[in-house]
Amino acid sequence: MEYIKNYKELLSNISCTKCKRARKIVLDILNIALEEANPRKAVHKSLRKVGRKTIDVYGKKFKFKNLYLIGFGKASGEMAKAVEEILGEDIDKGIIIIPENLAYSYNLKYVKVVASSHPIPDERSIKAGNEIAKLAQEAGPKDLVLVLISGGGSALVEILRSQITLKELEQITNLLLKSGASIEEINTVRKHLSLFKGGWLAKRIYPATTVSLIISDVVGDPVEFIASGPTAPDTTTFKDALRVMEKYNLIDKASENVIELFKKGVKGEVIETPKPLDKVFKSVHNFVIASNKESLMKAAKYAKEKIGLNVLLLTSRIRGEARHVGTVLASILEETYKDGFLLKKPFLLLAGGETTVTVTGKGKGGRNQELALSAAKIINGLDGVAFASIGSDGIDGVTEVAGGLVDAHTVKRVGKENLSIDSALKNNDSYTIFKVLKDYIYTGPTGTNVNDFMVGVVLNEES
Amino acid sequence: MEYIKNYKELLSNISCTKCKRARKIVLDILNIALEEANPRKAVHKSLRKVGRKTIDVYGKKFKFKNLYLIGFGKASGEMAKAVEEILGEDIDKGIIIIPENLAYSYNLKYVKVVASSHPIPDERSIKAGNEIAKLAQEAGPKDLVLVLISGGGSALVEILRSQITLKELEQITNLLLKSGASIEEINTVRKHLSLFKGGWLAKRIYPATTVSLIISDVVGDPVEFIASGPTAPDTTTFKDALRVMEKYNLIDKASENVIELFKKGVKGEVIETPKPLDKVFKSVHNFVIASNKESLMKAAKYAKEKIGLNVLLLTSRIRGEARHVGTVLASILEETYKDGFLLKKPFLLLAGGETTVTVTGKGKGGRNQELALSAAKIINGLDGVAFASIGSDGIDGVTEVAGGLVDAHTVKRVGKENLSIDSALKNNDSYTIFKVLKDYIYTGPTGTNVNDFMVGVVLNEES
Repeated sequence: MEYIKNYKELLSNISCTKCKRARKIVLDILNIALEEANPRKAVHKSLRKVGRKTIDVYGKKFKFKNLYLIGFGKASGEMAKAVEEILGEDIDKGIIIIPENLAYSYNLKYVKVVASSHPIPDERSIKAGNEIAKLAQEAGPKDLVLVLISGGGSALVEILRSQITLKELEQITNLLLKSGASIEEINTVRKHLSLFKGGWLAKRIYPATTVSLIISDVVGDPVEFIASGPTAPDTTTFKDALRVMEKYNLIDKASENVIELFKKGVKGEVIETPKPLDKVFKSVHNFVIASNKESLMKAAKYAKEKIGLNVLLLTSRIRGEARHVGTVLASILEETYKDGFLLKKPFLLLAGGETTVTVTGKGKGGRNQELALSAAKIINGLDGVAFASIGSDGIDGVTEVAGGLVDAHTVKRVGKENLSIDSALKNNDSYTIFKVLKDYIYTGPTGTNVNDFMVGVVLNEES
Repeated sequence: MEYIKNYKELLSNISCTKCKRARKIVLDILNIALEEANPRKAVHKSLRKVGRKTIDVYGKKFKFKNLYLIGFGKASGEMAKAVEEILGEDIDKGIIIIPENLAYSYNLKYVKVVASSHPIPDERSIKAGNEIAKLAQEAGPKDLVLVLISGGGSALVEILRSQITLKELEQITNLLLKSGASIEEINTVRKHLSLFKGGWLAKRIYPATTVSLIISDVVGDPVEFIASGPTAPDTTTFKDALRVMEKYNLIDKASENVIELFKKGVKGEVIETPKPLDKVFKSVHNFVIASNKESLMKAAKYAKEKIGLNVLLLTSRIRGEARHVGTVLASILEETYKDGFLLKKPFLLLAGGETTVTVTGKGKGGRNQELALSAAKIINGLDGVAFASIGSDGIDGVTEVAGGLVDAHTVKRVGKENLSIDSALKNNDSYTIFKVLKDYIYTGPTGTNVNDFMVGVVLNEES
């Protein structure tokens, strides 16, 4: 399937044959990676019906009396659609919570579709939490609750601790999102405000069996942090939550109730989130069915077997300031191009993860486009080298494109347009460059998110 | 040979056996890399006397009537010592120019040792230029001039274009060094102020044969930029020099004479530096005898053959902000530790290059120590993982140490000392952390410079 909508344009933007071939490989590999992260495909790959009231998830069998479906997150519409295709009327009852802008695309037969708020929770999130709690409670010991979890779930659904008001939750979510805290840190706080996140949903489903199918949007796939881990044991504590508040100077900015709750928690005066030894988790089965790494591994296999490239799959956990990550990745391509001592041409570099951008300018851009632009400077003039970085959700920063494609000629073409990569980076204005060159990668919203993909190719002389 | 003076302390700073083993591997590998960059060893490896008045450099033979030795740069003392050991009285005359602080360590038999100024040239640089020019002129068509080039050479020796005064050279060198311009950009300007750099020395030596032995301190080993390429054809132009001045807003800050010279150069009113097609370069032979890559390759071979590690030699051209480079490199170790799908344990990661630090704080530190600290955060708790980054010259930033060593326990140990890696990075105060932990790597000045080395290891369970 073609995820990259301007595929043809990206090939015709440049005339030399070798450049076209390098670009084509990069784009084909990205298509493979995106395909592997497709929520429907991921569900079909992992979940099978293997008999009456019996399912198989990655080779593990589950029998049930009733099956309930619960879903929340940006991909839950697509995921639920796939589950309906597979299980149909075996779904006794179901509800999924999706961001407002996506909710109206889905009309499901066995599953109720509810629109909610993202990225800041509102009263709909609370209402959704109550609906899910009710459904969870209905499930008995012989029942199975299939939970579809994907990025964005943290905001869409909530059951608040009684000490906290929705207003306070909205405020602290806002503060955290702007603080520079990592997603693990943000979700550590969220878990300790909630009776849904941090394993609480699993506790509510118990004694029924929980089977969660998870699309990971957190680097390294830590199940307890994806959508704040509603079906995962929590390894963080009230003390950790308080520490995050201190680290980002939020103690005085957050409402007193929040801080007081955390302090009470530290003293053991309110109940902690469910911890790994809780018996509840014996009947919980979490499966990551799509992730950055799964996509990269599939892409690596394809590149090796179908194109015959020497593949280096570096890491799915790349982090750091986008432009510096771009420099490092490009320096690997440069080394291979110029000498290739351990890494031989034709060579493919694959990496994934999530970089950051420290915004100082007023331009329009995103982390993937900045990353690609800084790489362009290093691969300048290196014939047969091409590189791209994209967000798997199709939305890079504040732009409508997924990322950018660069090659040996990018710097020269930028110069001809009287633009400057250095100025664009300085002003966080990467999109302007890609727009003028028409070298942005456009997918539209992909309905999934497994972070970012970076792909670079170094062709050999004969290519 | 042991280059790391606190080797034993670095092993005893930590008690667990596996940690010690991981540390030991990292330190042994660094010792190998440093050994390979040793100027004396590099000369002995590349230069042999193979008969009366005949030398062999990397398999290429040169016969001569008289042999003159010219050297400049931080490593020229050690290099000249090695040449005396190999050629002895075959050296008819010789002169080397070394930074003042190093000059008094050398008492050579056939070669005059001259102290000069670094990093800002002064009248001694001009005097040294004249002495070398005189010697070069003495050499006839059947003679050979052996030129020893290493980092720091640009400031130590100069013959100025008549339009420029020493004061103007000092001023512009100062401006350039503070501008943020790359070494390639700085040396593009320097070449066009000079009648020594940018191939002019080779032109002066002609019709004698030039054989240059070069230790590379520029990422990627571009001979024309190492010590501003006195024996290499210049591919840059007056126009390029002017462009650098514009890019860093130095047009108004530099003296009018400099700008006027460049503008005249652009119009063709003054002579350009010697270009690649100049017949002079037919009798010029440049050999890079030590470089970051040579060191890394030797280290890779040792790690594979002697220790049995799976080695990934990533690149010798790494660049970017130190802390972000550290994050990327550590994420590769993390991936291998946790999954190791393409890169199998026991695993060694090797990289080299030169990173940068944007100084915003007032602490004491260096790029290698910042790089290592940011890596420590990611490898925290990963048993059997260790990582180090050092400057091959033994001097990291404003400290007296070469770099820092981190492992799975660094973060915890920093916490116990009531210190914070985040604060240290924020304040550019990396050295304080390494001093307290005693985990800095101390070599003393190594007398060579082939940029920085980064080494990371991931042991397997059995290790």
